[in-house]
Amino acid sequence: MAASVTLGVMGEDAVVGGLLKTLPKPASSVVTGPGDDCAVVRVHRARKLQLLKVDSVVEGVHFVSGEKMNRVGWKAICRSVSDVASMGGSPKHALVAVHASQRTSWSQLEALYKGIGAAAERFGISVVGGETGRIEGPLVCSVTLTGWVEEERLVLRSGGRVGDSLLVTGRLGGSLRNGHHLDFVPRLKEARWLTKHFKISAMMDISDGLAADAPRLALASGCGVRIDPDTVPRNEGCSIDSALNDGEDFELLLACRPRKVPKLLDDWMLKFPGVPLTRIGVLTAQENSCQPRELFKTGGYHHFK
Amino acid sequence: MAASVTLGVMGEDAVVGGLLKTLPKPASSVVTGPGDDCAVVRVHRARKLQLLKVDSVVEGVHFVSGEKMNRVGWKAICRSVSDVASMGGSPKHALVAVHASQRTSWSQLEALYKGIGAAAERFGISVVGGETGRIEGPLVCSVTLTGWVEEERLVLRSGGRVGDSLLVTGRLGGSLRNGHHLDFVPRLKEARWLTKHFKISAMMDISDGLAADAPRLALASGCGVRIDPDTVPRNEGCSIDSALNDGEDFELLLACRPRKVPKLLDDWMLKFPGVPLTRIGVLTAQENSCQPRELFKTGGYHHFK
Repeated sequence: MAASVTLGVMGEDAVVGGLLKTLPKPASSVVTGPGDDCAVVRVHRARKLQLLKVDSVVEGVHFVSGEKMNRVGWKAICRSVSDVASMGGSPKHALVAVHASQRTSWSQLEALYKGIGAAAERFGISVVGGETGRIEGPLVCSVTLTGWVEEERLVLRSGGRVGDSLLVTGRLGGSLRNGHHLDFVPRLKEARWLTKHFKISAMMDISDGLAADAPRLALASGCGVRIDPDTVPRNEGCSIDSALNDGEDFELLLACRPRKVPKLLDDWMLKFPGVPLTRIGVLTAQENSCQPRELFKTGGYHHFK
Repeated sequence: MAASVTLGVMGEDAVVGGLLKTLPKPASSVVTGPGDDCAVVRVHRARKLQLLKVDSVVEGVHFVSGEKMNRVGWKAICRSVSDVASMGGSPKHALVAVHASQRTSWSQLEALYKGIGAAAERFGISVVGGETGRIEGPLVCSVTLTGWVEEERLVLRSGGRVGDSLLVTGRLGGSLRNGHHLDFVPRLKEARWLTKHFKISAMMDISDGLAADAPRLALASGCGVRIDPDTVPRNEGCSIDSALNDGEDFELLLACRPRKVPKLLDDWMLKFPGVPLTRIGVLTAQENSCQPRELFKTGGYHHFK
């Protein structure tokens, strides 16, 4: 990469991927390093694997200035909960780092923490620490979450196989418009149920839009992907383009063997009658890449782009 | 606190302390929550306690624009290592979140990660994940570090007792001027040696200056503090005011029973001949507060102030 290249012309995947190559080889305790929804590490003598995740919300990127700060706090925690859920795990402890300008009011921070506290309570998380610092810029709230997963229930992005059915929870699109991105409930209990009762090959949460995230799951699994656009469940008033590219859905995208799908759909409907689970496509051989092409040409939301 | 109060008129301790009161009660797994250098949590069946820390470096606050980015990366990791050390523990896994403007060059980020990698290698840390995002503001690099400590070697800020001697490693002051804040080596092996061979009552690292941090340790221990200014070890060319208030020293401040001090100083000198360990004061009864008064009136570096 030319030294003068700025981040503005690179996608986030390229930036993160390039940077991580420069780091020393991880210790043997690391089961899964960067590239999945969470890192997975082995802890001496603990029965479960530990999940580690950091994720931030930035004013002007993940919420607009003037937004109700309790909703921002809720979102800051729930983004990371969604990542822990998509590995099959349960969240446990959180650290919260807030950087705000001197002009931020006490009541704004208090509201932010009210949202953080509400989400922590809802998902059984203890906020054990953090920091508050000054920044001459937008408000940034970074949440680090630890979690745990039974080894046999861990689901990676990379476990998909050619022929696996691809399914998605809920409905996609319009999240920024309808406010869903600020009050969504991460699919934690759904993911825990899935990994308890079914063999899920691969899973991730949809945060940058299906058009960006489905190829990521496919690539991690060494597969291509074919989506049937007519089957993609959309929120009211959303075009297929919007459902694929808006992002911030925080729904689960999962792969499993096709012969398991009928029972999975039946059992799901009984367990979660209010939440659709929809078969939207299939993992294909890698040389087929992402099909149909026109669905993936926009490629969802990318940082720095 | 009045709702219209902005962070500019509050200190960081007041901000963080006030916010944390609003959070739900932590789970029984939490040994020590916010308020110490790290959070301490119990992990099911693990023999050691887990330490959790997040700490950030912000352009314009912790380093100047145009600074060599490998030094910034080194500092970003080492700040958290210093916190883990001051609890008596060893670092293990790191998550790195970088927010940068679109104008940041690839080579700057690469240099940042070079420094992160060098520090990770030096202290046996695996960087297991992170994120890179866009911000229309200064560069912010947040490092979350996990670590481990044997239960019997855990040292909190709150363990000091009236009559304990206060000691400090190294020399204080001038860190921002002489560049020490960008290339310091956290006192990890020193802290591990201290907690292996001696009963340390209380310990923390000095990041905001002794004038801010000594009262924090004393307050956490339910004590007051008396410092003898003539004994405070200063870096070359530093006034006592500078040694107390510059901050960013990343030296250890520790308390132990006075009868242990002679052997501690003797053994230390043999083990770490290049690093001074100096007795600078004593923990007093709380009603004596911080003495002498004039030392503490400026109170070190405070965010938001």
